[in-house]
Amino acid sequence: MSLKRSHTQPSRKSQSNNRFLRACWREPVDYTPVWFMRQAGRYMAEYRKIRKKYDILSICKTPEVAAQVTLQPIHRLRVDAAIIFADILLPLQGMGIDLAFTKGEGPAIRNPVRTSADVKALRMIEPREDLSFVMEAIKIVKKELNGKVPLIGFSGAPFTVASYLIEGGHSAHYIHTKLMMYKAPDTWHALMQKLSQVTMEYLRSQIHAGAQAVQIFDSWVGCLSPGDYRNFVLPYTRQVIQGLKGERVPIIHFGTGTSNLLELMKSAGSDVIGVDWRIDLDQAWKRLRYDVAIQGNLDPVALFGPLNEIEKRVQDILRRAANRPGHIFNLGHGILPQTPVEHVAAVVEMVHNYSRRKEKGIHG
Amino acid sequence: MSLKRSHTQPSRKSQSNNRFLRACWREPVDYTPVWFMRQAGRYMAEYRKIRKKYDILSICKTPEVAAQVTLQPIHRLRVDAAIIFADILLPLQGMGIDLAFTKGEGPAIRNPVRTSADVKALRMIEPREDLSFVMEAIKIVKKELNGKVPLIGFSGAPFTVASYLIEGGHSAHYIHTKLMMYKAPDTWHALMQKLSQVTMEYLRSQIHAGAQAVQIFDSWVGCLSPGDYRNFVLPYTRQVIQGLKGERVPIIHFGTGTSNLLELMKSAGSDVIGVDWRIDLDQAWKRLRYDVAIQGNLDPVALFGPLNEIEKRVQDILRRAANRPGHIFNLGHGILPQTPVEHVAAVVEMVHNYSRRKEKGIHG
Repeated sequence: MSLKRSHTQPSRKSQSNNRFLRACWREPVDYTPVWFMRQAGRYMAEYRKIRKKYDILSICKTPEVAAQVTLQPIHRLRVDAAIIFADILLPLQGMGIDLAFTKGEGPAIRNPVRTSADVKALRMIEPREDLSFVMEAIKIVKKELNGKVPLIGFSGAPFTVASYLIEGGHSAHYIHTKLMMYKAPDTWHALMQKLSQVTMEYLRSQIHAGAQAVQIFDSWVGCLSPGDYRNFVLPYTRQVIQGLKGERVPIIHFGTGTSNLLELMKSAGSDVIGVDWRIDLDQAWKRLRYDVAIQGNLDPVALFGPLNEIEKRVQDILRRAANRPGHIFNLGHGILPQTPVEHVAAVVEMVHNYSRRKEKGIHG
Repeated sequence: MSLKRSHTQPSRKSQSNNRFLRACWREPVDYTPVWFMRQAGRYMAEYRKIRKKYDILSICKTPEVAAQVTLQPIHRLRVDAAIIFADILLPLQGMGIDLAFTKGEGPAIRNPVRTSADVKALRMIEPREDLSFVMEAIKIVKKELNGKVPLIGFSGAPFTVASYLIEGGHSAHYIHTKLMMYKAPDTWHALMQKLSQVTMEYLRSQIHAGAQAVQIFDSWVGCLSPGDYRNFVLPYTRQVIQGLKGERVPIIHFGTGTSNLLELMKSAGSDVIGVDWRIDLDQAWKRLRYDVAIQGNLDPVALFGPLNEIEKRVQDILRRAANRPGHIFNLGHGILPQTPVEHVAAVVEMVHNYSRRKEKGIHG
């Protein structure tokens, strides 16, 4: 499925640290690469300083500021990849959605999508233009990074974006989302078709702007039964991923609570599957049959613990990965706001030190 | 592990519908028994009428009213078991916890347990006396049921109760709970020891009062990694279950998001494992190796859908159970407040009709 297309990838040549990209392609690396979901964020004093001046949407829409925030963890931590600072709901504004971020409660959509007419009214956007600020930020970051580490682009997966669109925000039970599937499947499929198209174009534009890998966040898909996932979600995620195969950058497919969806998620065709801490990494990789790379899977709450406890958990994950090519160390979900930044830095060092291969000279 | 001790169970003799108990013991039944978590609750007009006069704690503490509410679904639905109306946090008040139920937000604990001193200060209760109102309600319900269907008693599992105790209410990330495990394991173990003792005594008292089966709700345990479950939770749940084995009533062990914990949960020794909708029932049962009964697993949100969609899902679950002795039909979690009551009634009929065995005379 995932050909080793990376050798033809021009950006690899000028990349001084390409461990992350090599691991995505399941090539041998000298040590396990590590990055963190939400590695730029509130746990960092540098970020909180910026947030005093700008709200989240303003950061995202001001390329210089988004770039600066993206680079903060690169300056502070020795992570092996950067990820562009953005929000998975950014494409919605151009589609006609009234989006705001409320203090402490996350995104709020004042005109949720519930009916066939609502879906029809959603405007199709041209991400390259409508989200040009993201592409600008990517270009600035790439220039600043100057090949130091690769840059990851990302988007929400159609299901997770749809769940926000329909519920109007974060949800406990996803009642309206599931009810659209069950009661108005045509409306659901029309919505997913629109979101898939936008998602694919958005990720493609990020790649063309310079993103060297992309991650698709299906963060809330774990609320579904395997049957509902197969019928209502998988075809669209697959469509997004397959539409990007020609771009020859690794595609990471991530969700939480997905332990029973792993085989189905794999069939969508990504190069890397991201898993959360609810499943042991070796179990997850075994079920995926080892022919995709795997990303994960430390519990973000573990970062609040004492260093010796963190160390045990990092070692356990690396032991389960067993030096098999294709493991990218990450958390099982994003870094939480109160996380001690020095613990995050320590994990980077632990991963690098404990995973260092005996064979010399694979990289560098 | 689970001996067929039921044949010596005196309450079986006078039971006119014992399908539920037979299924718990994996004995053949004429059709699949069905009951619902939260089958007494806000989705029912009869319940809302009572709630206008009493708050939740008052219902629980007034045996006649708790009994009345327990029996409402028995009058309205043709379910195969009753479950005593109570709340998993009831034992906490006697232990010195200031518990309230806030409108819409669920339980609130004003003095959460965070330190070793907090754990030491928790008073050990005598459930038979301190929760005598529950035992009284059980006795009234048993009398009213007069053998029509069996009555289930229940409690929270030590972990889920601990998570409320420590967080002070429902939680998104369980940071304080996990941090007690990681930073103060002795405090954690002392707390779990106390809660296990109370849980076991509470369930034993319910059995002695007349409960013919008990369910242990570990509703939020799916937030843990398998390793944390093994080290910090399993020994206590096992202790509760093993302590009740001599009572010779079936023990149901339930959680949500537990697909990676099933084998570990099984090792705690219950007779029935309850699973949510995130795993296909046949997959779950296969992993449990069929030597325990299984309960589940319709998504509660499916009850909001049209009847033909509900029907497909009910049939799918029954098909996966494959008429194997030991399936109890239920939801994957509690009935949600806005659920149409006629859909709940319809599911009972569907389960009974579609599962009716060709062999006659197994029951009755």
